[in-house]
Amino acid sequence: MIDNTHIEALRSLLGEKGLLTERNDMAAYETGARYDQGRAAFVARPVSTEEVSAVVAYCVRNGIALVPQSGNTGLVSGATPDASGDQGVLSLDRLTALFELDRVNRTLTAGAGLRLSEVNQWLDEAGLFFPIDLGADPRLGGMIATNTGGSRFLRYGDVRRNTLGLKVVLADARGTVLDLGSGLRKNNTGVDWKQVFIGTSGAFGIVTECVLNLEPLPRQTATAFLVPSSPDRVPDLLVAMEEALGSYLSAFEGMSGNAVSAALAHVPSLRNPFERGIVPDFVILAEISRTSPPRDGEQPLDAVLEEVLAAIWESESAPLADAFVGPPHEMWALRHALSEGVKHSGRLIAFDLSFRRGDIMRFLDHMKVEMPKHFEGVTICDFGHIGDGGVHFNLVVPTDDPRVADGAFEARLREWVFSVAVETFDGSYSAEHAIGRKNQVFYDRYTPEAIRRLAAGLKEITSPGPLGSVTF
Amino acid sequence: MIDNTHIEALRSLLGEKGLLTERNDMAAYETGARYDQGRAAFVARPVSTEEVSAVVAYCVRNGIALVPQSGNTGLVSGATPDASGDQGVLSLDRLTALFELDRVNRTLTAGAGLRLSEVNQWLDEAGLFFPIDLGADPRLGGMIATNTGGSRFLRYGDVRRNTLGLKVVLADARGTVLDLGSGLRKNNTGVDWKQVFIGTSGAFGIVTECVLNLEPLPRQTATAFLVPSSPDRVPDLLVAMEEALGSYLSAFEGMSGNAVSAALAHVPSLRNPFERGIVPDFVILAEISRTSPPRDGEQPLDAVLEEVLAAIWESESAPLADAFVGPPHEMWALRHALSEGVKHSGRLIAFDLSFRRGDIMRFLDHMKVEMPKHFEGVTICDFGHIGDGGVHFNLVVPTDDPRVADGAFEARLREWVFSVAVETFDGSYSAEHAIGRKNQVFYDRYTPEAIRRLAAGLKEITSPGPLGSVTF
Repeated sequence: MIDNTHIEALRSLLGEKGLLTERNDMAAYETGARYDQGRAAFVARPVSTEEVSAVVAYCVRNGIALVPQSGNTGLVSGATPDASGDQGVLSLDRLTALFELDRVNRTLTAGAGLRLSEVNQWLDEAGLFFPIDLGADPRLGGMIATNTGGSRFLRYGDVRRNTLGLKVVLADARGTVLDLGSGLRKNNTGVDWKQVFIGTSGAFGIVTECVLNLEPLPRQTATAFLVPSSPDRVPDLLVAMEEALGSYLSAFEGMSGNAVSAALAHVPSLRNPFERGIVPDFVILAEISRTSPPRDGEQPLDAVLEEVLAAIWESESAPLADAFVGPPHEMWALRHALSEGVKHSGRLIAFDLSFRRGDIMRFLDHMKVEMPKHFEGVTICDFGHIGDGGVHFNLVVPTDDPRVADGAFEARLREWVFSVAVETFDGSYSAEHAIGRKNQVFYDRYTPEAIRRLAAGLKEITSPGPLGSVTF
Repeated sequence: MIDNTHIEALRSLLGEKGLLTERNDMAAYETGARYDQGRAAFVARPVSTEEVSAVVAYCVRNGIALVPQSGNTGLVSGATPDASGDQGVLSLDRLTALFELDRVNRTLTAGAGLRLSEVNQWLDEAGLFFPIDLGADPRLGGMIATNTGGSRFLRYGDVRRNTLGLKVVLADARGTVLDLGSGLRKNNTGVDWKQVFIGTSGAFGIVTECVLNLEPLPRQTATAFLVPSSPDRVPDLLVAMEEALGSYLSAFEGMSGNAVSAALAHVPSLRNPFERGIVPDFVILAEISRTSPPRDGEQPLDAVLEEVLAAIWESESAPLADAFVGPPHEMWALRHALSEGVKHSGRLIAFDLSFRRGDIMRFLDHMKVEMPKHFEGVTICDFGHIGDGGVHFNLVVPTDDPRVADGAFEARLREWVFSVAVETFDGSYSAEHAIGRKNQVFYDRYTPEAIRRLAAGLKEITSPGPLGSVTF
């Protein structure tokens, strides 16, 4: 238990506003975005790297465990305290003062507590953006700690690719501050230490500031829904589109008919775009875009896309059964409603998997056949990013199914899905959500002994104090 | 000294062809690409990860130091043995058997001993390439160990961005083999260990295999030479080009008049493209490209570039004094001849610096003023990658200058240039050549104490044995 002396000491470091200890005030920090209910000993809300350092040093010296929390939008219990009541939450939500745009360098130096939406609103005027496209609205620190990817990964890559610098506080007795990188795009003078803190859930240090690469905003966009002639032709379709369109192609998103139907049923504002309203088994949302403004004499992107699709359609043994170009905002509205729709279809058990691009459809096909044999009545409502190999493999159990209340059922389901994804298809059990308490057991199981030993050694030399929700 | 027992033991691990001990055979491995002459105790040439592991384990157990060598094209003495005669060279040059193209995944799994040129020749048929564009022709392992960038960084990024997986042998008593990543584009299940071995000169482990991201080959290209209205307007010109062209822009290379003149003087096949043959003080080679094949109705890229340059030219207080579009192969031929030209102009002292994009021209201007005050008669023949902040800051001393033979002179010059670049302009002293014996002293000087301690700790937990030419 954290006694009153500690609370008073922390309050003296952070001020009245900087430390929450009342149950009501702490509730939002104790509850996860979708799962999870923990209990915090306190919530520290520092406003500067120096305050983070002071809090962390105090906690390490006194053996107090801290869980860093950013936007609290994660799904793997990475940012919430456990049920013990012994862990303090260190929230990044007041690290929001820093926002320095370097127009020539195309970089932003920002506090880790800023939200993605705020950052991109402020950058809009300069014609730039931080090119990570997500359904959720996380804060930057958490995006770094999970290395999020999103729907435009195919064009822009993940957070790792777009991070040029970090300021990090280590959980050692001094709360050591590391200043890693300063907006240089090329710098190979030893270990690139910032990589250690990207995608590792805050266990090796707390990110307080970052320098981000910015990209020019897309100025022209065209989208189409593609229906593959059969699921196993999706890879051919992807290759054909990449061959014809090269780097114009900015998204190639897969949507199962089940997920689309769920969205159409539960989000009334959506229009059913399919002929006679019949939702295909599998649909792809393809987007092409140009970052240059439209100019005279240039073929409009819609026409480019129409032409390429027509050529693929007319090719021998075409991988395409149907395709139609439509308004980007309408097509993306359907894509972005999938998550919401699936959530309303019953009890949702979500997975964030990834595969080599050629293996995704093989995995999905395999699961379609095997699921009913192993778990009858479970509906697969997958969608994801075929272009980069990511699959949000969502399973839905009817709300009135007695198994919904059975924790052991969900555990068995998880075990089985992960074993197929990792052992049979050589995939990843966490594509872009990183590791939290929820998937710790799979880290322990699927990480080779040599790597786990290295990670434990790295933890010891960086942040030996109790930090984060994961044991590496 | 390495006695005969060791040589025999290594020969039994590697076979006759796998171990060189004759002076003549070893000469090429003891001599650097431009600088350097060392002395090897032996040269080990394993053909597989297993052989690398066996050699490394033997050497670690017997305290024998190994320097990994890849294409031996580096400039910082990172891959050659020192003069002691006590270090063995571990060459990657026979790790060339593995070449597995995954067309759908757009990845290549390859042996670390393959040369960049071979890889890209073989990929050409598939319309793909490994998108690192360099003057030299290194092997893949060395490209990873230095994290090379090159001339198309602006579009494609560096080796780090394009590496999806590595196989690495650690210098511990077992020669532990780490299998890191398997071609997944998204995988956030703990520390991304491969990052530790990228750009760190082989000191933390020896890369034997890699999984690389491939990109569609450009299908259309247009280039122009741009003359800025003054050096301090170069950043405005870059921003204007990025705003108008977005991600079409694939190169924005800076060339000093001195470097251009040197190339024209020493490479007879080049045509002088400038009006009345007068070489401007500073020229930019801008390239735009499309990875999609040309299609009817599409404006040709030359016309796009002409139009954009005309608009910038006509803008108020234009940053452009002159510009002309020309044949890409001819313009790149001049760009690629700079290095050769500069080498023939006298004794070359080369620097591989980087800055924030807005600081490059300020640094170059500063040096133009200060150089004559500090080092009279030294000519600045810089060129580099304005688009990503990299500058090959080349200094030339006339061959008949008595200072050429004076090692202390060169050392003073290096000290001064690095101190201005790092201390005054917050730049990097190694943009894309990483660390070797040649810049070890600057690593020691400019790396903060906390980072050096971390690096030493990391070395201890990964490769405690004597490996590489650098002490981290």
